[in-house]
Amino acid sequence: MVGPGRMNIADVARAAGVSQTTVSHTLSGKRPVAEATRQRILALIEELGFRPSEVARSLRTQRTNTIALIIPDIANPFYPELARGLQDVVDPSQMQVFICNTDGLAHSEADFLDLMAARGVDGMVTVSFHLKESDFDSVTKAGIALVRLGDYADEGTSDTVATAQQTGMAEATGYLVGRGRRRIAFIDAPHGLNGLGQRFDGYCDGLRAAGLPLRTDYVVETGYTRAGGRTGMATLLQVEPRPDAVLCANDLVAIGALDVLRDARIRVPEEMAVVGFDDIEAASMVSPALTTVRNRAYEMGRTAGQLLISRLVDAYDGPKRHIVLPTDLVSRESA
Amino acid sequence: MVGPGRMNIADVARAAGVSQTTVSHTLSGKRPVAEATRQRILALIEELGFRPSEVARSLRTQRTNTIALIIPDIANPFYPELARGLQDVVDPSQMQVFICNTDGLAHSEADFLDLMAARGVDGMVTVSFHLKESDFDSVTKAGIALVRLGDYADEGTSDTVATAQQTGMAEATGYLVGRGRRRIAFIDAPHGLNGLGQRFDGYCDGLRAAGLPLRTDYVVETGYTRAGGRTGMATLLQVEPRPDAVLCANDLVAIGALDVLRDARIRVPEEMAVVGFDDIEAASMVSPALTTVRNRAYEMGRTAGQLLISRLVDAYDGPKRHIVLPTDLVSRESA
Repeated sequence: MVGPGRMNIADVARAAGVSQTTVSHTLSGKRPVAEATRQRILALIEELGFRPSEVARSLRTQRTNTIALIIPDIANPFYPELARGLQDVVDPSQMQVFICNTDGLAHSEADFLDLMAARGVDGMVTVSFHLKESDFDSVTKAGIALVRLGDYADEGTSDTVATAQQTGMAEATGYLVGRGRRRIAFIDAPHGLNGLGQRFDGYCDGLRAAGLPLRTDYVVETGYTRAGGRTGMATLLQVEPRPDAVLCANDLVAIGALDVLRDARIRVPEEMAVVGFDDIEAASMVSPALTTVRNRAYEMGRTAGQLLISRLVDAYDGPKRHIVLPTDLVSRESA
Repeated sequence: MVGPGRMNIADVARAAGVSQTTVSHTLSGKRPVAEATRQRILALIEELGFRPSEVARSLRTQRTNTIALIIPDIANPFYPELARGLQDVVDPSQMQVFICNTDGLAHSEADFLDLMAARGVDGMVTVSFHLKESDFDSVTKAGIALVRLGDYADEGTSDTVATAQQTGMAEATGYLVGRGRRRIAFIDAPHGLNGLGQRFDGYCDGLRAAGLPLRTDYVVETGYTRAGGRTGMATLLQVEPRPDAVLCANDLVAIGALDVLRDARIRVPEEMAVVGFDDIEAASMVSPALTTVRNRAYEMGRTAGQLLISRLVDAYDGPKRHIVLPTDLVSRESA
């Protein structure tokens, strides 16, 4: 199964009126093929205008020219933008991207991994909340080029692209401190998901650097969505003394927090500063416009694509590469 | 290739140490199989705890438990929401959805169609700007359940789900007329795309009903994105007399129009009313909040999923179904 736009064994077999096995044997020379047939196949390969070496490579590697992008939440605009970056890089190589939405569920992550490996994609880019290093064994053993996005303790085994989340969140905390905030809360994603703990760690770093205590009642664990942000903010509004600023695990959470503050007629940023993480397009659409930590979604997708292309097209076979993208603090109206 | 979570011929063949063809012949009875082998296979099928009828069905239909969703713009939140609706309906049937982003390009639409048909997906849901009825022949001949979304003149050949776009846009035009607007412009998507012309037709209907002329300089054709909306609005601001209201082909376009009006310090809705189409989540986030025509993305995905499930799971084999979803005018701040 080879994608459109690239000739393959099947095309030659069809044109020659022989089986794919016969074409394969003709090219590999491993099994005898009747001389007349062999000549006809070789003539056709020349006539069809592609080099036997290409056919042989297609045979050897079983290329399908497809890439699977496995993501946890297609409704979070961060991921479509990441997909855009990936597609822009792999399109010129005629590779097609399938997007698989796992909802961040462990069984769904595992299912898509298996399914895509079984379908023989050439490459895989994954954002996984649950999978462990060993879960990827079947993928790497099948010769599928793998890029994992996010932070992993076990990053030695595949190419990775991460964001300097911890530094970014520490900087955001320092920014709030610099604007006179002392009661800084944190609406966190569910704990225990791969890599995301770094955002919380950055918050702790920022508090420590400012000599502020970590108050456990200022840390709320919730969903990684707008609805989660609403729940988290509603909880924080019950705490005494009320926080004067809130850092959010991502922009969707921050937008949910803004919803609650608007309804409660609490002025942002005067009474409560709000900072997000990601800088999705909606961050500049909401009112007040969201101050946030830029997590370069497009760049992350683009970088993942480049890592894949280097292996699949340029035949790079060197050590694994681990790329960490910087963040920026984007100062708008909410803090 | 059968998805995880369902036993198949390959599993039986592996367990029995025979070829899939042998299992297939044992079940179909079409070719002789050595009695000892036949007994071993049947015993294994029983031992593995699934009914031969299930295996036979898997054999007959070559089920893969996968569905392809082919969409033009993953960065338009309308489509992730549509994908959500589809996934929620097919998940309980253990079906996995691949999302293919075509960027609305004709060659990419055709490529994904071919690729997905070659990969033997069970079902396909497509939003296509360019493909004609005959382009789907290979899909339907391969026995793939097909649901096309949008309006098609040739809707007789597959299940379809559409939105009453024309009525919705006529109603929006009437709404503006009712609020005293007389110079109503329209920022349209690129002309000639499947189905989308209905939005423009609705605008014309609305003008006609109000006895207003169609001014060609009030109609701008642009991209179907936020950037397109910016370009379109900038163009309209050059027209004399300036429009006092603008209908936009979708919400992204309307949000781009709002960007330009904000920069130009033109008050919305006082000096210029703005109405979108779709009601994506961002419509309620922008300031002023966007008045828009609700196009039920989630419901559209859900309905498409139900049409697929009825064919794939419930074995419905009746006439094609054509479902048209109603719209609502959602009145917010921008008009």
